[in-house]
Amino acid sequence: MHSRASLNWSRTQCSNGSWKLVYFVTCLGFLQKKSKFCKAICNGLNFDMDIPAFSLPRTSVWSSIYISSYKSYDIDIAVSSLPFIHTPPTTKKMAETRIRFGILGCANIARKVSRAMLLSPNTTISAIGSRSLEKATAFATENHFPESTKKYGSYEAVLDDPDVDAVYVPLPTSLHLRWAVLAAEKKKHVLLEKPVALNVGELDKILEACESSGVQFMDATMWMHHPRTAKMKEVLSDPQRFGHLKSVHSTFSYVGEGDFLKNDIRVNPNLDALGVLGDAGWYSIRAILWAYGYELPKTVTAFGDPEYNESGVILSCGASLNWKEDGKVATFYCSFLSNLSMDITALGTKGNLRVHDFVIPFNENVGPFYTVANSRWAELSLGCEPEPSEFKITTVLPQEALMVQEFGRLVQGIRCGEAKPEKKWPTLSRKTQAVIDAVVASINIGFKPVDVVY
Amino acid sequence: MHSRASLNWSRTQCSNGSWKLVYFVTCLGFLQKKSKFCKAICNGLNFDMDIPAFSLPRTSVWSSIYISSYKSYDIDIAVSSLPFIHTPPTTKKMAETRIRFGILGCANIARKVSRAMLLSPNTTISAIGSRSLEKATAFATENHFPESTKKYGSYEAVLDDPDVDAVYVPLPTSLHLRWAVLAAEKKKHVLLEKPVALNVGELDKILEACESSGVQFMDATMWMHHPRTAKMKEVLSDPQRFGHLKSVHSTFSYVGEGDFLKNDIRVNPNLDALGVLGDAGWYSIRAILWAYGYELPKTVTAFGDPEYNESGVILSCGASLNWKEDGKVATFYCSFLSNLSMDITALGTKGNLRVHDFVIPFNENVGPFYTVANSRWAELSLGCEPEPSEFKITTVLPQEALMVQEFGRLVQGIRCGEAKPEKKWPTLSRKTQAVIDAVVASINIGFKPVDVVY
Repeated sequence: MHSRASLNWSRTQCSNGSWKLVYFVTCLGFLQKKSKFCKAICNGLNFDMDIPAFSLPRTSVWSSIYISSYKSYDIDIAVSSLPFIHTPPTTKKMAETRIRFGILGCANIARKVSRAMLLSPNTTISAIGSRSLEKATAFATENHFPESTKKYGSYEAVLDDPDVDAVYVPLPTSLHLRWAVLAAEKKKHVLLEKPVALNVGELDKILEACESSGVQFMDATMWMHHPRTAKMKEVLSDPQRFGHLKSVHSTFSYVGEGDFLKNDIRVNPNLDALGVLGDAGWYSIRAILWAYGYELPKTVTAFGDPEYNESGVILSCGASLNWKEDGKVATFYCSFLSNLSMDITALGTKGNLRVHDFVIPFNENVGPFYTVANSRWAELSLGCEPEPSEFKITTVLPQEALMVQEFGRLVQGIRCGEAKPEKKWPTLSRKTQAVIDAVVASINIGFKPVDVVY
Repeated sequence: MHSRASLNWSRTQCSNGSWKLVYFVTCLGFLQKKSKFCKAICNGLNFDMDIPAFSLPRTSVWSSIYISSYKSYDIDIAVSSLPFIHTPPTTKKMAETRIRFGILGCANIARKVSRAMLLSPNTTISAIGSRSLEKATAFATENHFPESTKKYGSYEAVLDDPDVDAVYVPLPTSLHLRWAVLAAEKKKHVLLEKPVALNVGELDKILEACESSGVQFMDATMWMHHPRTAKMKEVLSDPQRFGHLKSVHSTFSYVGEGDFLKNDIRVNPNLDALGVLGDAGWYSIRAILWAYGYELPKTVTAFGDPEYNESGVILSCGASLNWKEDGKVATFYCSFLSNLSMDITALGTKGNLRVHDFVIPFNENVGPFYTVANSRWAELSLGCEPEPSEFKITTVLPQEALMVQEFGRLVQGIRCGEAKPEKKWPTLSRKTQAVIDAVVASINIGFKPVDVVY
């Protein structure tokens, strides 16, 4: 008699002390936004609200309940107690407009992104393929895919499915060229995991295939789609409070657990030969380009001490980037051997900006960042003012769902004949990859400066 | 009928809600530490405490009042309402043990450090010399030096004064060699502003003179003496919560106001030829060495885009430092052209540490820093835990007074015949200068790696 329910919600405390809840109820790709005021919001599960009427098939399997900004609980709910009103809308219009994803492979990251496809109001999952049909079937079940999802024992079958509009490709990087090109040739829009390719040459083949087929290309760099990212860009663009950018430093590091450093795909020279540079470094390089308005640096100089595993795959590295203009510089450091860090520090002539969880916010619903402008020493330099201010940017949908939603929106536009593929996204991928290539080249020639070719 | 009073205090809230105040009352080098419990601590100036009896000459000019951790007020107090009991102690013992400073020159920074000499309980000011007697006299008055302070129209006269135990040398760097050596030869202990010299060769002459005369040498890197620095070192040294250090990034930048970039001493090639590298870069290089337990890097590679003023003095630059062992790296960036930043980000195998005001705390009485350990991705990598924690380290005496106090303590030990000069401080100065020299050398040979010579 118990099933599980998924509520994604955010809360705001009102001036009178009561709480406003905004919550999304999702199942099988269907999503409703609700809000409610109540006096108290969390007393175990007996919070001060009735679960209101919403569309919910009684037999669904739901994933979890997220309560408050800071904790998530995984709790059974008596579905029988929920006041069901009607089943999800399946009108022709909804069915037509929702973009249907096919997923190639059962990578771990696909769990998160498939959840996002179900959270996003304009997408759904219609197929998953793996080299093993059993694996695909189990993955679909474990991740609460719609019952209608087709499970295939090959990637090709997904690409041949006429009910698939777009594919998400979380395969190891070495396989991107083959499968992304084939997907584009089969007229499937391509959401491609990063790093998008082993080098710009490979990426160009993928992008050419997408352009030739008129399909949308986007890499799965989720943080680009968090509303915080746009807000931070506003700060960087403010001539009065930031001035112009002079220096950026970004890090992304985390410790691979267990036998990660030996056996994970990300350190396998045959699967992800770029190692930490392609995995974590990708984000920091993108962050630097993002901060500099995607103006490419002139040269890249790798730091002298990369670390490698026994197979020769990079586990930690960094580089300095030079624009040869106005003293503009940037540095990044990425590592599988240092505790989690996800920092951007951007220094401008009039202000600066810091963020410490830019890749994946510590908390799914709130992204903080810190800025200060026009700092001044206090009298006798006994201190300085003002202190940095914290900004918290809330989001109801997590950044990966916003990414999927944006991808879906672009694909919808193309399908309706209202738009051409958005060229911004392949351009950003290619610029990021070009810097990665330069870092690799600099390492290969002994940490000397390398021109960035684009 | 009104004069001004200086109270430096910190507060702690007790479990019963009342507050414990610890405050220092200072004037003319005399300092008393007091504490008091009271129910409420701040209601404008009518806080819930009587200003208690303390030693205070009725005619003194006081500087300011600092209330709470976050705000400073500059307020007149009716001195006539203060319950004066007696005048400052001038017993023979006090007079003998208090270290008497002579100050060479009227640099701006000397205002802050002379205040520190008066705040520190074991030091005082007995002389100031300038090339202009009028300037020295005005400086002594403006900065509330003891009335007994001797004012001289030359630096030599300070060095020849038998009532001067130690000299503080805030002169431009080009003058350090001459005056620090002469001071040491005159058996004066030397507190020397940074950068200590134009290069290690000059510094060695200073250090040799100090060693030969048996006097203490210390550079005026104030943040080394903040209790936060020791606490942060504890964090970095914790094998369970930090692991071992892999990467450090440090910045120190601020915007020189007015005609700073053309006319300030710090960008005058004849006075401070190292420019921002010697001024701001000094701190970041020291921070990196501090974090790495003062193990020198093997090589230094300057970033490719330094900026210069019209006189060829560096206004912004940076470098990467390599230990050629265990992937240990560091980077720093310093600038007179970017808004204030004073960051250290240290990444260890199990934790990390961040501080954003390491050079001069935003607030004189509280130094915050941020750490996190053993971070883990949440389920589905929807977030990560734990979030960084803030630590706030309070100090009653500001860091520059703690510096002066420590210098005074070392000098007292030498004067009593109980101790030899502490070699730690000249060693740290020399290591910092050695890295600066390597950065200069790397810039001069086109941003190639340079071995650090020590």
